[in-house]
Parts: sequence; C-alpha cells; structure tokens
Amino acid sequence: MLLGRIIGTVVATRKEPELSGLRMMLVRELDASFAATGKIIVAVDAVGAGQGEVVLYASGSSARQTQVTQNRPVDHVIMAVVDTVTSDGEVRYDKQQDG
Amino acid sequence: MLLGRIIGTVVATRKEPELSGLRMMLVRELDASFAATGKIIVAVDAVGAGQGEVVLYASGSSARQTQVTQNRPVDHVIMAVVDTVTSDGEVRYDKQQDG
Amino acid sequence: MLLGRIIGTVVATRKEPELSGLRMMLVRELDASFAATGKIIVAVDAVGAGQGEVVLYASGSSARQTQVTQNRPVDHVIMAVVDTVTSDGEVRYDKQQDG
Amino acid sequence: MLLGRIIGTVVATRKEPELSGLRMMLVRELDASFAATGKIIVAVDAVGAGQGEVVLYASGSSARQTQVTQNRPVDHVIMAVVDTVTSDGEVRYDKQQDG
Amino acid sequence: MLLGRIIGTVVATRKEPELSGLRMMLVRELDASFAATGKIIVAVDAVGAGQGEVVLYASGSSARQTQVTQNRPVDHVIMAVVDTVTSDGEVRYDKQQDG
Repeated sequence: MLLGRIIGTVVATRKEPELSGLRMMLVRELDASFAATGKIIVAVDAVGAGQGEVVLYASGSSARQTQVTQNRPVDHVIMAVVDTVTSDGEVRYDKQQDG
Repeated sequence: MLLGRIIGTVVATRKEPELSGLRMMLVRELDASFAATGKIIVAVDAVGAGQGEVVLYASGSSARQTQVTQNRPVDHVIMAVVDTVTSDGEVRYDKQQDG
Repeated sequence: MLLGRIIGTVVATRKEPELSGLRMMLVRELDASFAATGKIIVAVDAVGAGQGEVVLYASGSSARQTQVTQNRPVDHVIMAVVDTVTSDGEVRYDKQQDG
Repeated sequence: MLLGRIIGTVVATRKEPELSGLRMMLVRELDASFAATGKIIVAVDAVGAGQGEVVLYASGSSARQTQVTQNRPVDHVIMAVVDTVTSDGEVRYDKQQDG
Repeated sequence: MLLGRIIGTVVATRKEPELSGLRMMLVRELDASFAATGKIIVAVDAVGAGQGEVVLYASGSSARQTQVTQNRPVDHVIMAVVDTVTSDGEVRYDKQQDG
C-alpha cells in the first residue's frame, strides 16, 4: 500500500454502472516525510475515511477484494486510516496531533 | 483511477480482433491542478465520453471488468465523466464551467 | 494501451518454452507529440506489425488475452497498428504520411 | 521483487477487516548502491522481518500468494530478509556487517 | 518484457517457503543504448541465465506462469537470454561481441 492524504471528493453522474454507490476520494500520495509527492489518484473508500485523513491505499487487483469493492472494477481503494507511523524509533505521524 | 482529459481519438484497422467495435480515446493524465502531467494513454471508452471531457480511467485488470470491456484484452478504460471535484472545501473543477 | 514505435527485433535462443514462436519487437514509447519518451520495452507482436510502425501496446495481464498470446507468459503485447490519431480536431498522425 | 529497508511500522485501527492481524511495515526502496531511492511503500510482513533489515518485497497479485497473505487484499508483501548480495563478483551487502 | 543485465545474486535464508529453490538474480534495467537506467530489480531465473548476461524479464502476474515459477509468488522473472537486438536495420547488441 501507499501512504496518502485525502484532499477531496469526485462526483460523476455518467459512469460505469458498477461504480454506483461507491465514494470516490481524491488522494495525494505522500512521501516518507508526509509531504505530497505530486502524484494524485482517485480511490474508492472502503473504510469511511474523511477529508484530510492520512490513509493507506492499495492498487491493482487487490483493490477489488475489500468487502466494499468485491467484484467491482476498481483499481485503487482506501484500505485503512492511519493512526500512527513509527520510524527509526520515533513517532513520525500521530493522527491525534495531525491537522 | 486517475484523472485525465480526452484530447483525441485513435483509429486502427489492423488490430487484435477482440478490440473490434471499441472506441479508443487519447487521454492526457492530469495532476491535482488539472494541468497535464505529460503522460498520455489510449483508453477504451466505456461511458460515451467525448472530446475535451475530464474523465476517470482505470488501469490493469479492472479495465476488463466494465460492461463494455468484459473479457476484452483492454488495459485502460474510461470509467466516468467527472462532474465536479471538490478539494479542501472548494470546488476545484466543475464540468459546467469547463472549456 | 500506450503509443509506441517499433524500432527493432530481439532474438533469444535460450528462453522460456512458452515464448517459442512469438515475435519479440523492440518498441519505443511515444509521447503526445509522437516523440520518444526514452522508455523502451520488448513486446510480443499479435498483429503482424513491422519495423517503424506506430502501434498500440497493452501491458499486464491483458497481454495474455489476445488470440496470439492466449495463456502465454507475456506482459507486453502489440495490439494494433495505428492508422490515424486525431487530437483537438486535427490529424496529428497519419500512417500514410509517416516515414 | 525490489530491495528495501524496513524503517518503521504503521498502526491503523479503522481498516478493511481482511487486514486484521497483519503487520504493516514502512519500507524504503533501495537502489543498486543500497541507498534510498526516495520511494516508500507499506508492505505486509510475511517472514518476521524487523526494523532496519534489508528485505525483498513483491508487488501486485503475487503479494496475495504467500502463506501469510493468502486471499488477503494486499498489494505489497515482504518475501525475504536478505543475507547477502553479490554483484560483479564482490559482496556488496552482508547482513552480518550491516548496521 | 524489459531489457536487463544480470549483475549479481541475492541470498536469503529467511523467506516465504514458496521461494525455496529459486535462484534470485540482481538485474539492472537497460535503456535503448544498453546503458543502465538506474532501476534495479530482483528476478527469479527461469532459463539458467548467468552473471553479465543481457536478458528479458517479465513483471506482474505473467511472472508466475513460466515452467519454473508456476504458482509461485514471484513478480519478476527472467524469461530469455538475449542473442541479438537489431534496431533500425543494424545489430545493436550481439551476445558474441558482448563483454
């Protein structure tokens, strides 16, 4: 999975029917310093993630294997909302301090 | 999925038979500012998208799982025409204002 | 799919048996201006493409689903020979004018 | 697979249920000189790897085929802890000397 | 597939059991001039390739479909040892002249 931050939502009326009812989130990829890499993707939300949260998202065929996306034509999915990232023995990210 | 803008069409007479009847669109990948990233792909249209529209496209095996591309050897497919993108609380893209 | 131009061929005697009989082409990826991006791949030819032609190639699991590559361990395949690319209302590429 | 070094761990309470019980490690991708490339991923640990270790990780559908990740929606998995890398006839990495 | 040159080997005792018995090679990706692109991967050898040889390697799910890697959790595999690459009508690489 990759680290990302949810920065928005996407609305589309005209779409593949199998996407109906799925929430589509705009996600910035983050690097090891939790800065934006410049890459942006649109992921389906499988965990009830919200604006500004740091998340883990999966890509490829695994994105079709969550309970929410089972058998849907989805290639990126938000799998988890990150609580903490500990790196080299230090807490580098703590959701409680974020924002 | 990734954000893209349809900038053209591709015609090919000599091709894998399973591509017959599919519309092939030239799509520029967009970044978070809706500027072109420089990357370009050719995607099959699954939703009746047209020239200039901002779309979402999926890649990989999910591209074979729309109603239009079921079991076709397709690796990029246009899944949705974007109406709005809302980011950090503001409407960053609105199809009604586009163009 | 991605746009590429065939620039050569690859010969390999010692290889996975399932590749036997497949033509392996050296392909340069092209950008929106039909200039080389610098990336190069080796794709199996599924359509009888030849030296210098502009083609569409697919990657990943879809590359195993053409009539020529069915169930072969192939990850890039040439799917079509491009006749024309029309972009922003103009013909940007025409095979008849190419070369 | 790609070479990486484990630099931390990720904790997430709110997540896809199928991720429960899996250890999620923060991994820096390494280049041929064992320097960080700048890319970072979060991989599930399939081998009991620990902080600071140089590992091999697999991506894509193969990440769902280890004994630990069987049928889990995982897209990156740590497959091995590297003992030695020998390149051009010299030992370029030796776990015993690392640290 | 992509062009690469084998520059070494990787030894790992602690690993996913399904990797047992597979040879893991350190491979530098090559560009169209047969120079290193800077990217490095670890691929399983399916053809008996050796140090210094120029090879073709496949990535993704196709890497699990050679005779050697059938149903193994492998994401890069060496598929062929290159004899010659002919480009724009000239022999650009000849294994007999290499080295």
